Amino acid sequence: MGERCGPRTESTVMQVYKAPIQDMRFAAETFDYDVVAAMKQFADFDIETVHALLEEAGKFCTKEMLPLNPVGDRVGLKFDPESGDVTLPDGFKKLYQDYVASGLGGIGHPVQYGGGGAPHAVSIGLSELATGTNKSFSMCPGLNHGLISALLHHGTDDQKKIWLPKLISGEWTGTMCLTEPQCGTDLGLITTRAIPQDDGSFTLTGTKIWITFGEHDLASNIVHLVLARLPDAPEGIKGISAFIVPKFNLDGSRNGIKCGGLEHKMGIHASPTCVMNMEDATGYMVGTPHKGMRSMFVMMNAARLHVGIEGIALGEIAYQTAVAFSRDRRQGRSLNPERNDNGAKADNILVHPDVRRLLLNGKATTEGLRGLAFWLANLIDISEKHDDPAVREEADDLVAILTPIIKAYGTERGFANINDALQATGGAGYTTDWPIEQYLRDSRIALIYEGTNHIQALDLVGRKLPRAGGRLYKAFSKRVHKFCKAHEDAGTHAEFIAPTRKAINTLNEVTMALGMKGMADPESAAAAASNYLTLFGITTLAYIWAMEAVAAADRQDEGRFFRTKLKTARYFFEYILPETDSLVRLINAGKDPLMAFDDEEF
Amino acid sequence: MGERCGPRTESTVMQVYKAPIQDMRFAAETFDYDVVAAMKQFADFDIETVHALLEEAGKFCTKEMLPLNPVGDRVGLKFDPESGDVTLPDGFKKLYQDYVASGLGGIGHPVQYGGGGAPHAVSIGLSELATGTNKSFSMCPGLNHGLISALLHHGTDDQKKIWLPKLISGEWTGTMCLTEPQCGTDLGLITTRAIPQDDGSFTLTGTKIWITFGEHDLASNIVHLVLARLPDAPEGIKGISAFIVPKFNLDGSRNGIKCGGLEHKMGIHASPTCVMNMEDATGYMVGTPHKGMRSMFVMMNAARLHVGIEGIALGEIAYQTAVAFSRDRRQGRSLNPERNDNGAKADNILVHPDVRRLLLNGKATTEGLRGLAFWLANLIDISEKHDDPAVREEADDLVAILTPIIKAYGTERGFANINDALQATGGAGYTTDWPIEQYLRDSRIALIYEGTNHIQALDLVGRKLPRAGGRLYKAFSKRVHKFCKAHEDAGTHAEFIAPTRKAINTLNEVTMALGMKGMADPESAAAAASNYLTLFGITTLAYIWAMEAVAAADRQDEGRFFRTKLKTARYFFEYILPETDSLVRLINAGKDPLMAFDDEEF
Repeated sequence: MGERCGPRTESTVMQVYKAPIQDMRFAAETFDYDVVAAMKQFADFDIETVHALLEEAGKFCTKEMLPLNPVGDRVGLKFDPESGDVTLPDGFKKLYQDYVASGLGGIGHPVQYGGGGAPHAVSIGLSELATGTNKSFSMCPGLNHGLISALLHHGTDDQKKIWLPKLISGEWTGTMCLTEPQCGTDLGLITTRAIPQDDGSFTLTGTKIWITFGEHDLASNIVHLVLARLPDAPEGIKGISAFIVPKFNLDGSRNGIKCGGLEHKMGIHASPTCVMNMEDATGYMVGTPHKGMRSMFVMMNAARLHVGIEGIALGEIAYQTAVAFSRDRRQGRSLNPERNDNGAKADNILVHPDVRRLLLNGKATTEGLRGLAFWLANLIDISEKHDDPAVREEADDLVAILTPIIKAYGTERGFANINDALQATGGAGYTTDWPIEQYLRDSRIALIYEGTNHIQALDLVGRKLPRAGGRLYKAFSKRVHKFCKAHEDAGTHAEFIAPTRKAINTLNEVTMALGMKGMADPESAAAAASNYLTLFGITTLAYIWAMEAVAAADRQDEGRFFRTKLKTARYFFEYILPETDSLVRLINAGKDPLMAFDDEEF
Repeated sequence: MGERCGPRTESTVMQVYKAPIQDMRFAAETFDYDVVAAMKQFADFDIETVHALLEEAGKFCTKEMLPLNPVGDRVGLKFDPESGDVTLPDGFKKLYQDYVASGLGGIGHPVQYGGGGAPHAVSIGLSELATGTNKSFSMCPGLNHGLISALLHHGTDDQKKIWLPKLISGEWTGTMCLTEPQCGTDLGLITTRAIPQDDGSFTLTGTKIWITFGEHDLASNIVHLVLARLPDAPEGIKGISAFIVPKFNLDGSRNGIKCGGLEHKMGIHASPTCVMNMEDATGYMVGTPHKGMRSMFVMMNAARLHVGIEGIALGEIAYQTAVAFSRDRRQGRSLNPERNDNGAKADNILVHPDVRRLLLNGKATTEGLRGLAFWLANLIDISEKHDDPAVREEADDLVAILTPIIKAYGTERGFANINDALQATGGAGYTTDWPIEQYLRDSRIALIYEGTNHIQALDLVGRKLPRAGGRLYKAFSKRVHKFCKAHEDAGTHAEFIAPTRKAINTLNEVTMALGMKGMADPESAAAAASNYLTLFGITTLAYIWAMEAVAAADRQDEGRFFRTKLKTARYFFEYILPETDSLVRLINAGKDPLMAFDDEEF
């Protein structure tokens, strides 16, 4: 249990992690990696190569990133109010250099700008491994990806040539500067101003808050993507433009953007959350005037998927930690005499059904969400690069509708899973000796940032469902029905197919009713949106688990992994899917019980 | 939002709290306080007096205890490994002295030993107020109550005379020393040894862990109740005796018990969680040899109720904090144009249905649980002091079966409510500027200590249900049926009575089936126990809310409080009670999906 007095040293923290590479590979294989691998752009990336790359990434994360995770939590950040400098704990700069040297940072980016050109299955897998082993650290390269995506989609050729190579190599890092003190969710309220200059550049003045890695000492330059208003901008969200604002100008001089302070947070203590003050800072417009939200949405969609993965990543390491504790900890006797370890005074707590329930809640939903993440990874590649426009469109539709699901349900379930893991470890889990409490604190922000989970639900209900006459939802529903029908026709796997069929039928009915309700009364649809998203999330996992169970059933001879998959699938259908019963009732409860209260009655 | 750089000062934390005295009084009145007030022992305590005492307590807690709460969290404790001394942050010693001087500490204890002789409605209310405003601090007098109860029940007259007056005045404080490194839940594994001495005392040697306020600088002596084994003790739980072991002997000399270190914890940073080492420490047996668990159970039952109240207390202050934030924060527009505040650029976030849902989840369950807490408070007084033995027995049965419910469901729901409050405040709630994140961390231990929540479920299913041929359950069920029938016969309040009737019928069926299952296969009942307890908890709140709704309906003319009660009751039945649908399915899922896994498969 580690020493209990005096200054804590990192060696007292019980760190447990085995990179879940086999499950990542299985998820990629089950969800269309064959389609990706068949595409000419990924000719160099067969599944064996993906596996090997993830193995390498897993080794780096476990060996280099994990040991610094409790250090970052405990030591935190130094801020110098005079200079605005932010210093990370000892070891983080070296870690960042090693990370850049490993080439992992740019592995998924275009070869043209110095990246590795790997498919998303690799970068999504890396995202989980990095987040699981050191979430604070992983947020630095994580933000980088967003800026790179925005430039690839909306930058000019010149901008790409100037900024991308050093961002992709990791020599420089990137940020997203959206939020201001008066606006978080509602970006229409932004007031930062950008004044055009004769040389085509702009000068920006204003204050941004919540800027992750807005200032730090890991890299030689920091490149901010900033939302601001031109002097002639229309009010609201349609008057916002996007600008590149570097910390150091290209001539090496210091630009007028400076960190004004750090937030004190519940977790992610080694991830600087900065107030960024701009005073006549030089910036360069990305995209067209007043259309800056387009660039931001490119960043945000990628970011939302990665935030969803945070729930998987920290759920996984918390689960593994609780399993290790449970194997070791002996308390009480099994109620089943056959399970008693008569050589010891007590049995290990894995004999107790409720400890298993707590652990299996985590295992079943984490693996299910990982299946979804790798499906999305493959769908993104298909949507961007497949030869057939119809295939591209279907993949794009699925990515669009499933992104809010993985962001919101992934983070909500991830937090719940870490909480269950903490409960399984009892008092030990409440101490810093077992880092589950850090994982719980670090994960909590994921339900909030990149659009709170309810914003995801409004995006799902208010934008994704109605889009193109409901085409996105139909793409999802059709996939599930097609899969169910194939197995019903073949008469196979009824234990998984029947409840999946029932779940998708329920979701169809609820979706239809919600659509009708939303047309008549948007406030009523908003009241149901969060519960609807959860229903959608669990139904999606039913499909994922049915797919994985069918795939695993054929491969039981290949090893225990596949036999365990079948058991975990059964657990999901018996112990997770039933949550949908209550959700349907809550969705139907309507808005009146909420809206009946006057403001003063709260 | 407070300053974001440099050292934090307490003034930057947005503290919000209004002691919920009106709701406490309403809860006491609705749940049998008239029976308590009619008893001769409480002739001095009519409801107006209770109200006045709670008002005073609320003022003290809000004014004196609340401001030190973030200080305790931030500054934490000092431990000197040489002396074993533990020092609380500046201000805590003065606060403790003021608390003792206020007389609040002994208010519920017997007048004979210097207490105030107040009914439990007062001490339970005080428990909520103290915990809500400063949970770390409140744990010191909280532990005291447990030791006092144990001595009142099992101490000799001499022991009572020696120890009780100074414990009740607060001059000395008390602890419970149960857990050892090898045993938390399973106390049968205790190894601390007690050797009888010629003078009738004992010398104790061993190590205890997790000892709350085992060492501190607030009081002049610390009195430990320690579980240990006599040399001739039988193995296991039936060989444990209880001893008083003071820090300072009655002659003023230092006893052989010393703090060996502090746990580093996720929260309650100002509450010392001590390793206590005993080396030939002098102790005095309480109760009879090998029957020490009896004394402990007296302490533990009282402690379990108070732990349940922690969920209410922190749920309440987190809710109030989130409401204050929501009234102030403006983001986006209501989807209902009638609600738009056209004088501002955005509406306050209370217009959004989902913000209301997050807040009302907290309001409805916190107030429901408070009703249960005050019902239990009154039942304890009735069970101990009512003239009619049949009335005493029924009250005792209800206390016995509802204690695990309020401990486990109260803390689980409380944690969920704080989490919802944090979500309503978004990013602000993740910073230490808004102390909800502290409430979340401070509350998390309550699901674990005093018997993990699953231990409560096993207590409910394995001991309370079968006891006396199911008499305890029948006492509860009968109350609910009687209430429903009275209103059905009168044809009143169907909106609350019909779902309550349905809920108790469902619980009856599930309980019957669980009993049958438990006889045939205890492991199967254990698999269902945690979900069963939650079902029982929500069903109990349905009864509480139906009772409160009926009581409030008659008093709507008396003010908004009563009209809001009716709305909150409706919210409960529409948005909380439906959770039971899924729970019934989970309870019926059986143990096979859990037990199918080999240990290696986790």
